[in-house]
Amino acid sequence: MTAARDAALRELEAAFPRERLVRDPGRLEAYGRDESDLGARPPDAAVLVESAEEIRAIFAIASRHRVPVIPVAARSGKSGGVLALHGGIAVSLERMNRILEISPEDLVARVQPAVVTGVLQAEVERHGLFYPPDPNSLEMCTIGGNVAENAGGPRALKYGVTREYVLGLTAVLPTGEILRLGKRSIKGVAGYDLTALLVGSEGTLGIVTEATLKLLPRPRHVATALVVFASVAEAARAVNEVLQGGILPRCLELLDDVSLAAAAKTSPYRFPPGAGAALLVETDGNDEEQVFAEIVRLAEKVQVHAQGDVIVAQNEAQRRDVWETRRYLSVNLKALHPLKLSEDVAVPRSRIPEMIARAKAVGGRLGLTVATYGHAGDGNLHCNVLFDRPEERPKVDEAVAAILRDAVDLGGTITGEHGVGVAKRDFLEYEQGAEVVALERRLKAAFDPLGILNPGKIFPER
Amino acid sequence: MTAARDAALRELEAAFPRERLVRDPGRLEAYGRDESDLGARPPDAAVLVESAEEIRAIFAIASRHRVPVIPVAARSGKSGGVLALHGGIAVSLERMNRILEISPEDLVARVQPAVVTGVLQAEVERHGLFYPPDPNSLEMCTIGGNVAENAGGPRALKYGVTREYVLGLTAVLPTGEILRLGKRSIKGVAGYDLTALLVGSEGTLGIVTEATLKLLPRPRHVATALVVFASVAEAARAVNEVLQGGILPRCLELLDDVSLAAAAKTSPYRFPPGAGAALLVETDGNDEEQVFAEIVRLAEKVQVHAQGDVIVAQNEAQRRDVWETRRYLSVNLKALHPLKLSEDVAVPRSRIPEMIARAKAVGGRLGLTVATYGHAGDGNLHCNVLFDRPEERPKVDEAVAAILRDAVDLGGTITGEHGVGVAKRDFLEYEQGAEVVALERRLKAAFDPLGILNPGKIFPER
Repeated sequence: MTAARDAALRELEAAFPRERLVRDPGRLEAYGRDESDLGARPPDAAVLVESAEEIRAIFAIASRHRVPVIPVAARSGKSGGVLALHGGIAVSLERMNRILEISPEDLVARVQPAVVTGVLQAEVERHGLFYPPDPNSLEMCTIGGNVAENAGGPRALKYGVTREYVLGLTAVLPTGEILRLGKRSIKGVAGYDLTALLVGSEGTLGIVTEATLKLLPRPRHVATALVVFASVAEAARAVNEVLQGGILPRCLELLDDVSLAAAAKTSPYRFPPGAGAALLVETDGNDEEQVFAEIVRLAEKVQVHAQGDVIVAQNEAQRRDVWETRRYLSVNLKALHPLKLSEDVAVPRSRIPEMIARAKAVGGRLGLTVATYGHAGDGNLHCNVLFDRPEERPKVDEAVAAILRDAVDLGGTITGEHGVGVAKRDFLEYEQGAEVVALERRLKAAFDPLGILNPGKIFPER
Repeated sequence: MTAARDAALRELEAAFPRERLVRDPGRLEAYGRDESDLGARPPDAAVLVESAEEIRAIFAIASRHRVPVIPVAARSGKSGGVLALHGGIAVSLERMNRILEISPEDLVARVQPAVVTGVLQAEVERHGLFYPPDPNSLEMCTIGGNVAENAGGPRALKYGVTREYVLGLTAVLPTGEILRLGKRSIKGVAGYDLTALLVGSEGTLGIVTEATLKLLPRPRHVATALVVFASVAEAARAVNEVLQGGILPRCLELLDDVSLAAAAKTSPYRFPPGAGAALLVETDGNDEEQVFAEIVRLAEKVQVHAQGDVIVAQNEAQRRDVWETRRYLSVNLKALHPLKLSEDVAVPRSRIPEMIARAKAVGGRLGLTVATYGHAGDGNLHCNVLFDRPEERPKVDEAVAAILRDAVDLGGTITGEHGVGVAKRDFLEYEQGAEVVALERRLKAAFDPLGILNPGKIFPER
């Protein structure tokens, strides 16, 4: 450890009580690891902060000694955003986990960053309200992390992603300002949309200490159906027909043949032989009959492409069964092969069949199984490269690189909802070009002139 | 004119054909005027550009000679965004008015900036698709202007504002880069959300030459109703009950007593005596019965607060009648008093009655009539200060200043959809604070280090 870091740590010790300053290497390892497959890069210390002012104090110390600061919450990210690549101070927001306000009158919630997304959802639903973004990790991930990554989820098809629900933010900049950005009103266009810029900035521009979120009235009824197809192409055709037919379901989730085979292991449904793909669809609204009528209309539309019957869940237990087919996919795929690397490309909707075919072809070329599932309604696909032994990793990385480039070549993106982090930083320029990345670096410098906040994330290191 | 400008103009003359370079003072005046009440500030020249490359050439000339560049399209803005405060070169996008693509498969449109919003809407509707943002000026305003201002409109309540529909942009920066920002896929989180940052940046960060827009399936049925109340407070209570009751209509437009009196002059409806406010509500969807059922449920909810019957339009002609009551308000208010200054504050929904009361009180104090109407569902209110003689203008400006400060004091914003421009730049800091404005200026400098693009807009001049 350098002298600068020692000096910074001494200042932290003077500024924070012992029980909120983590120095134990065993505990620190957990602060430098997330749900990506990138291992642990522990920080030199972690501070369990309780206020924006404390974060400002940490930035002051870090600026004096030029040590990195890394914001950390649930560590459920998939792109390595919390890894302390160059050591430094982890700012753990875990204690800032209060729901500050739920206003049914303004349809607004104010929360601290470490509120768990699922907890907020349950709480607002008790008020008859609805917070739509539903990342798969919602029982673990936090609003702060969702804001950092601009998290999506199946319901994004109808309701949009996190960005659409963040009205305002309080953020601490590396330069020490504590800024209130955005608004509490639903609309507002004064000045630049700094709120939208911070959403999805992966903790590289500022640390969010409070979010003002837009809520909706809760749709009272939901209908869920599962449809099986002979092939991904048939399923993709059905997706297009539904959307062009003027139906906007809240979810349209696709499973390819490998995923379906894995799902079949625990799913309560017996899929017909030759099943090559499935769609999980869901409609919602306030009138039970209307919602049911819509799922039936949707079922009629896709029936012609389907293989066998459309399964419409008739009650809450059946709904849960249908969702479990989707939700435990990740676990079930690991039963096929113990290791996997999951990507989250997104492509224009018309390119879904080709994207899935290309991912499969990449696997075929390299002797790896690739399973694709995801949010077909908005073209966001999780391509999972399955493997058995760590030694296969170089080949797996080659497959991932090919899949990411294929997504870009099809007019899509390297990441639909997981973020760039460390995992995909070497592919950013392939998608955006050198000039756009250079502009992003200039923006980063406008927020963080010393480069102390979360260095090495999003952009390749120079 | 300075020597630098002369030199710049000589370079423009060499670079552009005579018929696309406007120098005539009479014609130039039109390029320096919009629908704000700020008069004309003509540029020294206007270039009718046809490509991004031409805009880059203009930026190169302007950079060499340090002369301002001002993007101009329909000139339907309400905040003075096109005024050439310091002369310079107007980049008129009027010839870049092609719809490049409508893809029903990807639910995407690609357009040039001068496509008129209403023209795009009609065209996508012919494909069974829907572009929701509907600023009142939609028969005149352009997508480029909508992107610059992040335009809203009545349907924003259910469908959101322009930002929610811009997937990607091509923009020319003052430094000469032609950047493709964003994506064609519905989702995508790679790098910073530069697309969202450009939307609403009022033509101060770059000039947009192409936009990729998200489309929706077109809702096939719409139901419209008009409800009269004894007071604004009763109407506001009804708004809250509708939204909390789990109904999200596509519009919830409010008219106060003065607006109603003005509307009564041409409206086909006879409002009951003592009518103090009205709500115009609209629901939409794909099933005619469902849509009608929803408006009836909504009508039942508000009936208890209403004065007299709820008028539900029974056919397209009646729908038009209801909308004309709202749409010709601006004209009808001018029949009460020939002059008016219209503001577009937004407040948290619960503060609507207080905002309207405060605006009225400001008028009372200064001896001016204030009429308020607007998008009550999202708290975006148009407060119109009416007056008779230009000499009253200082008093009117005082009233506007008080109304803008009241909106901020109630937790709202000085502008819900019109933008800051020149009109409200002196109030930006009152809303956002000095530190946020300083950060915005740093971002501006990251895009436009020489400060040549649209100077004097959004930020007070120093």
